[in-house]
Amino acid sequence: MTANPRLFSFIGGDAGEWEVTGETVVQGNPLPPVSHLSVRAGDIANVVDGSGAWTLKGVTSNTRYVTREEKSELMSVEPTLGRTTATFAAMIPMRKNAEWWSLTQEDRRDIFQRSGHHSIGLQTLPAIARRLHHCRDLASMEPFDFITWFEFAPEHSSVFDELISALRETEEWQYVDREYEIRLSSVPKDPTDPTDP
Amino acid sequence: MTANPRLFSFIGGDAGEWEVTGETVVQGNPLPPVSHLSVRAGDIANVVDGSGAWTLKGVTSNTRYVTREEKSELMSVEPTLGRTTATFAAMIPMRKNAEWWSLTQEDRRDIFQRSGHHSIGLQTLPAIARRLHHCRDLASMEPFDFITWFEFAPEHSSVFDELISALRETEEWQYVDREYEIRLSSVPKDPTDPTDP
Repeated sequence: MTANPRLFSFIGGDAGEWEVTGETVVQGNPLPPVSHLSVRAGDIANVVDGSGAWTLKGVTSNTRYVTREEKSELMSVEPTLGRTTATFAAMIPMRKNAEWWSLTQEDRRDIFQRSGHHSIGLQTLPAIARRLHHCRDLASMEPFDFITWFEFAPEHSSVFDELISALRETEEWQYVDREYEIRLSSVPKDPTDPTDP
Repeated sequence: MTANPRLFSFIGGDAGEWEVTGETVVQGNPLPPVSHLSVRAGDIANVVDGSGAWTLKGVTSNTRYVTREEKSELMSVEPTLGRTTATFAAMIPMRKNAEWWSLTQEDRRDIFQRSGHHSIGLQTLPAIARRLHHCRDLASMEPFDFITWFEFAPEHSSVFDELISALRETEEWQYVDREYEIRLSSVPKDPTDPTDP
């Protein structure tokens, strides 16, 4: 199988470029605890080496709710992933309930807007880099609908904390029925490691 | 892998419950010609018996463009698949171009509305049963973004012909860069076939 070029795999296990520093069971069942995480473009079949306790995957996709104006606003301030200063990260897989998915697009958009989802997120830019992955329409049955990946500098941890608390207070989050949060710190590369290119 | 319960597989080959009666290369490359088609819930790995020349798959999903009013209008008149009178079918895989996918939701919704997509479809109800499958956000790289499956009685073939010609004239279809159409007729079940339960 050739992988979707927008597919990313998240591999939790005992090795990886990110070390787990904390976990929060926000709602519903947690994932089995792991000490490390790897994030890879492409399908997990190509990368898992036996150290993975679990793998989740998702694809980036077209925007669903932001308006034209909001989209250009975002694009002008959004930072990219992989900044050398962004040594902290968070992975938040979540699922929304059946009621949410039975709503029409405009119902969902109205809730998104009333909840201030865009404006709450905008306040964290350019400190917090973010990538949203969709899991709901994969061929496999997935435990979550979305995986959001965040990267930021240690000094912006409080900005991130405020972001997620604010979102969890919104009307939109009343439709969330499973959410798990993993906080991470990047593992320094060993300059003497001969396997590191 | 446990399959997404909304996943369907379309298997083109030399056997299947639908016999191919015609094909139209609407735009872009066609699929390899086959004489028969099977449609199965679930993943192809469980059903392919070596007679499949190609397989496509897609998942049904939440609605993307219809309004609240349009959705209830549809639900009140939409026929179900599998009617015994609906012995004709059509499978139309299609892809939209990068420009379409870079538009915001409201841009796409505006084009959908200006194109009369909903009202054109509504005129064919309850004659034409339809199921839309999404392929763009699967983990595998797929040749099409959507597969639409239609079922109707032979006497409604002209209704179906008018539907697809009307849609292909719209602004929305200017964003379609690959489209293939397969027309089908159901294979009568042999009542003496001992393998048929």
